[in-house]
Amino acid sequence: MTGQERSEEKSECVSMSPMMEADPALPESERVCVFGTGDLGHSLGLRLLQAGYGVVFGSRQPHSSSRLPHGAQVLGHAAAAQSAHLIFIAVQREHYDFLVPLANQLKGKVLVDLSNNLRKNQYPEANAEYLQSLVPGAEVVKGFNTLSAWSLQNGPSDANRQVYICGESAEAKQAVIAVATKLGFSALDRGSISVARELEDFPLQLFPQWRLPLRIAIGLSAAFFFYLLIRDIIYAYVTQGKDISFRIMVSLANKVCPIVSLIMLSLCYLPGVLASFLQLYRGTKYRRFPDWLDRWMLCRKQLGLLALGFAFLHVLYTLIIPIRYFVRFKVTERTVSVIRENRTTEFDTTTAWRSDSYLSLGILGFGLYVLLGITSLPSVINSLSWREFSFVQSKLGHLTLLLCTAHTYLYGWNRFLSSSTYKWYTPPGYMLCLVLPSVVLLLKLLLITPCVDRTITRIRQGWERGGRSEEP
Amino acid sequence: MTGQERSEEKSECVSMSPMMEADPALPESERVCVFGTGDLGHSLGLRLLQAGYGVVFGSRQPHSSSRLPHGAQVLGHAAAAQSAHLIFIAVQREHYDFLVPLANQLKGKVLVDLSNNLRKNQYPEANAEYLQSLVPGAEVVKGFNTLSAWSLQNGPSDANRQVYICGESAEAKQAVIAVATKLGFSALDRGSISVARELEDFPLQLFPQWRLPLRIAIGLSAAFFFYLLIRDIIYAYVTQGKDISFRIMVSLANKVCPIVSLIMLSLCYLPGVLASFLQLYRGTKYRRFPDWLDRWMLCRKQLGLLALGFAFLHVLYTLIIPIRYFVRFKVTERTVSVIRENRTTEFDTTTAWRSDSYLSLGILGFGLYVLLGITSLPSVINSLSWREFSFVQSKLGHLTLLLCTAHTYLYGWNRFLSSSTYKWYTPPGYMLCLVLPSVVLLLKLLLITPCVDRTITRIRQGWERGGRSEEP
Amino acid sequence: MTGQERSEEKSECVSMSPMMEADPALPESERVCVFGTGDLGHSLGLRLLQAGYGVVFGSRQPHSSSRLPHGAQVLGHAAAAQSAHLIFIAVQREHYDFLVPLANQLKGKVLVDLSNNLRKNQYPEANAEYLQSLVPGAEVVKGFNTLSAWSLQNGPSDANRQVYICGESAEAKQAVIAVATKLGFSALDRGSISVARELEDFPLQLFPQWRLPLRIAIGLSAAFFFYLLIRDIIYAYVTQGKDISFRIMVSLANKVCPIVSLIMLSLCYLPGVLASFLQLYRGTKYRRFPDWLDRWMLCRKQLGLLALGFAFLHVLYTLIIPIRYFVRFKVTERTVSVIRENRTTEFDTTTAWRSDSYLSLGILGFGLYVLLGITSLPSVINSLSWREFSFVQSKLGHLTLLLCTAHTYLYGWNRFLSSSTYKWYTPPGYMLCLVLPSVVLLLKLLLITPCVDRTITRIRQGWERGGRSEEP
Repeated sequence: MTGQERSEEKSECVSMSPMMEADPALPESERVCVFGTGDLGHSLGLRLLQAGYGVVFGSRQPHSSSRLPHGAQVLGHAAAAQSAHLIFIAVQREHYDFLVPLANQLKGKVLVDLSNNLRKNQYPEANAEYLQSLVPGAEVVKGFNTLSAWSLQNGPSDANRQVYICGESAEAKQAVIAVATKLGFSALDRGSISVARELEDFPLQLFPQWRLPLRIAIGLSAAFFFYLLIRDIIYAYVTQGKDISFRIMVSLANKVCPIVSLIMLSLCYLPGVLASFLQLYRGTKYRRFPDWLDRWMLCRKQLGLLALGFAFLHVLYTLIIPIRYFVRFKVTERTVSVIRENRTTEFDTTTAWRSDSYLSLGILGFGLYVLLGITSLPSVINSLSWREFSFVQSKLGHLTLLLCTAHTYLYGWNRFLSSSTYKWYTPPGYMLCLVLPSVVLLLKLLLITPCVDRTITRIRQGWERGGRSEEP
Repeated sequence: MTGQERSEEKSECVSMSPMMEADPALPESERVCVFGTGDLGHSLGLRLLQAGYGVVFGSRQPHSSSRLPHGAQVLGHAAAAQSAHLIFIAVQREHYDFLVPLANQLKGKVLVDLSNNLRKNQYPEANAEYLQSLVPGAEVVKGFNTLSAWSLQNGPSDANRQVYICGESAEAKQAVIAVATKLGFSALDRGSISVARELEDFPLQLFPQWRLPLRIAIGLSAAFFFYLLIRDIIYAYVTQGKDISFRIMVSLANKVCPIVSLIMLSLCYLPGVLASFLQLYRGTKYRRFPDWLDRWMLCRKQLGLLALGFAFLHVLYTLIIPIRYFVRFKVTERTVSVIRENRTTEFDTTTAWRSDSYLSLGILGFGLYVLLGITSLPSVINSLSWREFSFVQSKLGHLTLLLCTAHTYLYGWNRFLSSSTYKWYTPPGYMLCLVLPSVVLLLKLLLITPCVDRTITRIRQGWERGGRSEEP
Repeated sequence: MTGQERSEEKSECVSMSPMMEADPALPESERVCVFGTGDLGHSLGLRLLQAGYGVVFGSRQPHSSSRLPHGAQVLGHAAAAQSAHLIFIAVQREHYDFLVPLANQLKGKVLVDLSNNLRKNQYPEANAEYLQSLVPGAEVVKGFNTLSAWSLQNGPSDANRQVYICGESAEAKQAVIAVATKLGFSALDRGSISVARELEDFPLQLFPQWRLPLRIAIGLSAAFFFYLLIRDIIYAYVTQGKDISFRIMVSLANKVCPIVSLIMLSLCYLPGVLASFLQLYRGTKYRRFPDWLDRWMLCRKQLGLLALGFAFLHVLYTLIIPIRYFVRFKVTERTVSVIRENRTTEFDTTTAWRSDSYLSLGILGFGLYVLLGITSLPSVINSLSWREFSFVQSKLGHLTLLLCTAHTYLYGWNRFLSSSTYKWYTPPGYMLCLVLPSVVLLLKLLLITPCVDRTITRIRQGWERGGRSEEP
């Protein structure tokens, strides 16, 4: 970048306040200091100014700092530190050592560590703990690091409102919470500085709650893909020498999708049923569920949404059937053979009933599936009362499972009677995928029989077998 | 539960603060008390601790209470009550009588009643009023009861932010509002303690705004189902002796769905049109609409969303047509008959135009329908300005109605001319469902003629026929 | 309206407080004044009362004002002005002159201007500036005007939480921010009173961010519609004298939709790629992008959502193909000709592979497309961490583009070799629309090669070619 370009750019930037001393008109509580003039410092300063704070930037070269928001002041680090009680450290950890010589000015100040790392376990200790060790006289509070510069600048209406903080001093944390509230964020105190590492790992997370469900989905898809590949395509090749490998792209995909979808939907409702039986067996709701069950219950939403995704693909794969070259070829071939062989075709009302019922159940099931998906959107959940949410997710959810299972049973119909169904003595995929949903529906049926239901309801209201009931 | 299990569980629980006296370091305003150590009390205490409050639990057996969040203190009821000004009563109403002996310690304290009931009108008076009658010296505030233990614990980012409170003392309510705000909730004062019953009924509601629209949808569906059952299936059986009952599952469903969808979509836009004519007739916007119109206008969103649901089913039922056994049989039969009877088929451009236009209008109408549905999502509404929302819901809404109505007219085409259409002298379903949308569109057309539109606009801006205009 | 009706209505309204003096029990800071008793004043007063404020309405005829919320007081303008420090002016600009005689009572008061206009540039100066000029002794703050009476009354949970304010006096703005916060809104200070015009234009905006993308979509649709009209329909008419104009409704629409969708999807990812190359060329991230690139990047979300809309229509137009009269006619005709000419049909595995792959890629691409659309919903964005959002929108976005481009290449297959494809020497539409996505994917491929990727990552972390790196 040439000197000329630089100066052009500077002229675009906002002119600095001519007064280079901290504005004495504002009380100290209304003034905050920001160290660091990068993207994050810039955005934070702008937002603080908009919320009515006086903002003092600390800079190594206060007279040549550019690109700072209009209305902010720039001072040397020492002078800036003295001007405010709260100092935001919007600097990368590698540069923290510039704070060591400022130890005197920082004594008793609240330092807010905003830093993030590029990957987990990059350093032996958390950035906030490192900062505390460098400036032992200050009160370090970790916080705001889950926000991007972008969301800081645009305010909480466009981003996550929730920010997390942690630190040793309750008073320092209160001061930071007050600023966060004024900026429109909702700050949550997560405890002592030892939580800092956890907070620093937050922005590096990539769908932690989706991992297990995604692995299950991929595992199931792969298993059924190879199972069906062998049964359908390799079997045809080995026994009849026919190459029908083109079926992989649509026919096979359209078998894997509904199978995985139905299994995952039942995996989504199985833990709730298991939990009820566990409470019934233990006779109390006051004992914790085993860890594996807890973890399973926490990813039900993700299991359900992935199941919906597979159902959506199944619908699309089904609807394009008549457009396929293979299908159009077959239809023509069949009509031609009827004429050439001079056969008569007989309309079978039972088949018509079965075919239409099967399609209709699938459509209704998919409609409810989509409804469940829509009520999983955060903003829709928030507009439901707890009773409404549980009605949709439990009652309608089990109804969806029932419809989809019935859809699959009707698809199979009486084919299980024919020995040609069991190629190489293996059952077809749809039969395998019916096991789990049938079990879930049977268990649920048991749970809603009046006598079991009454016991469960009493347990959920705090009653315990063996006498002890909930008391104040 | 055996003693051994109990002790194992206790070891999992957080160790109690060794000091059993209220921490004197915190000022009273920073300390709150929670009576009740169940799920709700536990979650509330945790959240209060996270927001920086000192939390004191009141318990009958303070030395054996377990499962309390780390950092909280446990005292006997009397000592706990004395330690804070604000006391949350997280106990079921049946146990309220333990508070009577504490009357002295509770004098002047603010008691927050969090309780809910299992069903409406379970008790003669609201829980909060009962609590006030037990402890007349305290200030009872009803509130937070619309939150579940789960949403209390996870904070407002994952649940409804809005909480409602009511009570007699403005000062007591201010104290509760302050705590709510600090927990990240937005508290709304709903008035005196007499509103408590209403607040206690909130969490027991099950889609109150959806009831009327759902009843209309079910009523219309049933009526048209039986009408079409008689016209299509019973008629064929009686006059020709043919059993085509299998058509119930898809053909009939695919007639009921679009009919109900179109009628409900026009029911969604009819009240707005009626309201405009009423304002035009009265010459003012300052008189209230009749109650039935008000109630109708309040459920327009629900009517529209149900209409979208039926349209969605109609689309799916239509798209699976070529997969049906019946349709594939008919197609083959027709081709075979063309050949056997050595007929020639003639391509009719008019039919092609009609068929393609009819499908195209349906697709565009459904596209707009989905767009309307998406803009009904709470988070999307919130990101629209008022003008944008009304543009989408009114302009695009009426365009959707127009496209769907035109789609139905093109479907009918000139069949209304043929006498065979009127089986048993009844008109087909699609004709019946065209009445309402045609009326709504005609009335809307009247309203947007320049001279009527000008008058309506002036009335909406506060002008009144007969002179009185809006003044400060 | 007759006198009798009026009185009936009044009896419905809430009875006024009998005491017509301002309640002296509340401190001044807890009391606010509202001038104007229309819809807006009424809703604002109700909301203020609910938040715990004492509300005094100022009215010309305090004894006959009706329809005011229960608990509010009504006084004459002068008395009302004296009772509170903060006065909301909920009156239309045309009536502001009634404030001139109140200049003495309004001295030093904070006047909040809530007004909006009917169209942009209706008046030479902003309403707030006009108000300030009428009452020079008061402190005018513009604000809340982006809220409708409806959202004011229903509170921020049902509407946009963000409100904007501006004004000269920092102290006056602080007082308004305090009230906004207590009402549950998040107020953002936008600066001095000169910003008022901008704030007054806000509610008049109609999808400003959607304009450019919509114009691009309409322009592209129109261009490709006429291009294909000439190539397909006019060409057939001119060279073969065949009238196939009916194809406009479905066939042509189903060519325009995917073409526009694919071009807009690549326009959505092109600016990001260009920006990376610009940073690479400049060797720094600290220079601003050209304005056109900035503006382009800001409307990527809208470009993507419109592309999804066209893709959705493409899917529907494709799925109804087998239902069309024209297609059913063709299928029958083809089968009949096979028999009459006694031809044999040969199954081509390559065509089956190509046809199924093409459909399968389209389905997967559309599935990802929908996923991208869902993660663009405001409430879903808010629940994602920054890393998750960028993973979905960048990684999955480019994968979607890749799948859709491959889908189009497979659709074209080897037709580009045949000279009959180039009617009147023009390439078919799908060829034209492949240019842009291919370029974007090639450039993206360049960017993710290890050596280029490393440089880009360093630049994004603050490194600058030529030495200057980010320092505190």
